[in-house]
Amino acid sequence: MIAEIVAVGTELLMGQVLNTDAQYIARRLSELGVTLHRQIVVGDNPARIREAIHDAVGRADVVITTGGLGPTADDITKETCAEALGLPMERRPEAEAQVRAWFARNNRAMTENNLRQADFAKGAIILENHNGTAPACIVEKDGKAVINLPGPPRELIPLFVEHVAPYLAGRSGAVIVSRYLRVFGMGESTVESRLHDLMENCQNPTVAPYCSTGEVQLRLTVRAAREDEAAPLLDPLEKEIRARLGGVIYAATDNPEYSMEQALVEALCAAQKTLVTAESCTGGMIASKIVNVPGASDALLEGCVTYSNAAKMRTLGVKAETLEKHDAVSRETALEMADGARRRADADYAVSVTGLAGPGGGTPEKPVGTVWLGLATREGADAKELRLTGNRERIRTLAALHAMHWVLETVRNDAR
Amino acid sequence: MIAEIVAVGTELLMGQVLNTDAQYIARRLSELGVTLHRQIVVGDNPARIREAIHDAVGRADVVITTGGLGPTADDITKETCAEALGLPMERRPEAEAQVRAWFARNNRAMTENNLRQADFAKGAIILENHNGTAPACIVEKDGKAVINLPGPPRELIPLFVEHVAPYLAGRSGAVIVSRYLRVFGMGESTVESRLHDLMENCQNPTVAPYCSTGEVQLRLTVRAAREDEAAPLLDPLEKEIRARLGGVIYAATDNPEYSMEQALVEALCAAQKTLVTAESCTGGMIASKIVNVPGASDALLEGCVTYSNAAKMRTLGVKAETLEKHDAVSRETALEMADGARRRADADYAVSVTGLAGPGGGTPEKPVGTVWLGLATREGADAKELRLTGNRERIRTLAALHAMHWVLETVRNDAR
Repeated sequence: MIAEIVAVGTELLMGQVLNTDAQYIARRLSELGVTLHRQIVVGDNPARIREAIHDAVGRADVVITTGGLGPTADDITKETCAEALGLPMERRPEAEAQVRAWFARNNRAMTENNLRQADFAKGAIILENHNGTAPACIVEKDGKAVINLPGPPRELIPLFVEHVAPYLAGRSGAVIVSRYLRVFGMGESTVESRLHDLMENCQNPTVAPYCSTGEVQLRLTVRAAREDEAAPLLDPLEKEIRARLGGVIYAATDNPEYSMEQALVEALCAAQKTLVTAESCTGGMIASKIVNVPGASDALLEGCVTYSNAAKMRTLGVKAETLEKHDAVSRETALEMADGARRRADADYAVSVTGLAGPGGGTPEKPVGTVWLGLATREGADAKELRLTGNRERIRTLAALHAMHWVLETVRNDAR
Repeated sequence: MIAEIVAVGTELLMGQVLNTDAQYIARRLSELGVTLHRQIVVGDNPARIREAIHDAVGRADVVITTGGLGPTADDITKETCAEALGLPMERRPEAEAQVRAWFARNNRAMTENNLRQADFAKGAIILENHNGTAPACIVEKDGKAVINLPGPPRELIPLFVEHVAPYLAGRSGAVIVSRYLRVFGMGESTVESRLHDLMENCQNPTVAPYCSTGEVQLRLTVRAAREDEAAPLLDPLEKEIRARLGGVIYAATDNPEYSMEQALVEALCAAQKTLVTAESCTGGMIASKIVNVPGASDALLEGCVTYSNAAKMRTLGVKAETLEKHDAVSRETALEMADGARRRADADYAVSVTGLAGPGGGTPEKPVGTVWLGLATREGADAKELRLTGNRERIRTLAALHAMHWVLETVRNDAR
């Protein structure tokens, strides 16, 4: 099954909005085993919208459009798709009732134009949009399908999950199940070289890598006749990947948005252990990531952002002579920061970060990117040095990931 | 001048990488007064790359390609563009010398294939890429220009700034200058309705809005014969916009990446004042944003992440009876948090945030999104309530922006 995406909207074309919809749809289509051939973005220009949609419908089995579903005369996506499929438009009474009800409920005056939102290509499957007023639909003709979705991700994503994914899976008569393996501590190119044959040759399940700063996510996707047939197909592949990559896989999950901080909070809660953070160059990034996980309050007792030396001394009890003799970016300071933070809240673990994130401040011995991590437990404390590269934000993000990963591994080992 | 963007890469098509290049180029083209008609993404498929490039070259005056410049047989972007323009390829000795030097320097064996990177369309202007080995170029024929850029943003952006922007500006014989006005505290639709006529009718300078969570950025762009003619054209428009929007513009800058936290650090440093943060639901997000600004150490004395009640009492001196009687999310707790944080480090200002970011924990009286901010100075403390909407991350981000903006306004008022 061949697909194309046509995104309609001047705000996308002009770069006022980043086209995250295209990435979202592309990933989901790939999971569903649908082959995407093209993504096209056009503005609110009737001639170019027509050309883009007619070309796409001519070439692909499935065309997914995003945007251009509003009530104004500029919004011609639905009409143009109907035209490309050779179908007339018709007013749908159930949709008209909804539009009228919306205006009555919101005490707004309705114009005749607004009723255009109740017009669909003949025979269209209307998709209920719980998060907005834009009409969404699937239109079929001669084995082709055109799917019109609104542009805002908060409307598009639920519609895709609830309606489009099951529809496309149903067309192929199969169930699609994905499992995500999260990798930390091995570069993208090493992961790819170790799994190259699996990525190239595996047809069912398939393996695909997704990279973000410091992390690689592997998506294993299987197509099966029934849900319960998926796991037996995924398990051996996961086992093979684990054998090849060693211990760098820190999570296997069915949630594509799973994060290091979520793994950390879950590990701490499962072990009924508590954490304190002591951050210098990361400046609260670790605490903020942890707090973004619902339920983090059971695990994170406190966060200390001690960017200045005075704060390191006042709040964490780092000694003035340590800072003087060894510098703020050193094994000794990292150890005292972690130890002081742990004692202050009587936590089971404390992690500290002190480093040079740049752009200034580097020396030949301690270049920008030098970061010391400290980890204190009730038994003692340890420290390690990182040498990171990139701009200030990247160095800080990598330092935060390394720190969280070190705590995660320690909590898991201690629980064994 | 009409442009199209053709992005080549399976990783983009499949959603493994977000197409931020397209947004970057689209914004810059808009500034340069170049009209973008289409963005197209195709994978590493020769037939579809050919079709996309030939179509684009046929329609547009300027075609910018991203990606597909590697040394393998799959990488056919340069060759296809030459073909579309009707130009032969030729090996360029200066480029060949660079490729050979790179392999010698890195002690790597070079194959004949690698020398394909030294092949360019006849007469191509080679652009020096300081951040990678991919060859970039501009090719002209019959008034049309094709510009080949590598995909990685760390290579593409410097090439665009150094070579492409001046080239395109030169084609139109003008200088392009932009000024950015940052707006906080007024919604996108209100901003647009107040400036609608300016956005629609102003030709030189132009006004365009860009929105991100909680903020609107207005870009004023002028085309002039000389650099020094720009300001006199931009000043009256900025004045008119300020008159219409009132005090919601917190910065006017030539840096498109300018942020609230940068404005705050600059204001604190200019006034030689210091800040402490006390964060509950934002969990270190404010401190982390501030620390991302180089030089923040002069302004931020300390950050306290007191997500738990115990930490609020231990570190900030919030009273147990306050938490019991008024709850952690209350005016009283916000006031005591800010006051305690300020005193702890003897800072000039302290800002506190305590709220319900969800998803659970809301009640009819205090729904999810209820956030109290506190602000303490040497003269006293004040608090205010926000009612925010969205998911956990959005509520936290908005709360952090509101808190920073309140401090910014206060520091500026105090300095007057």
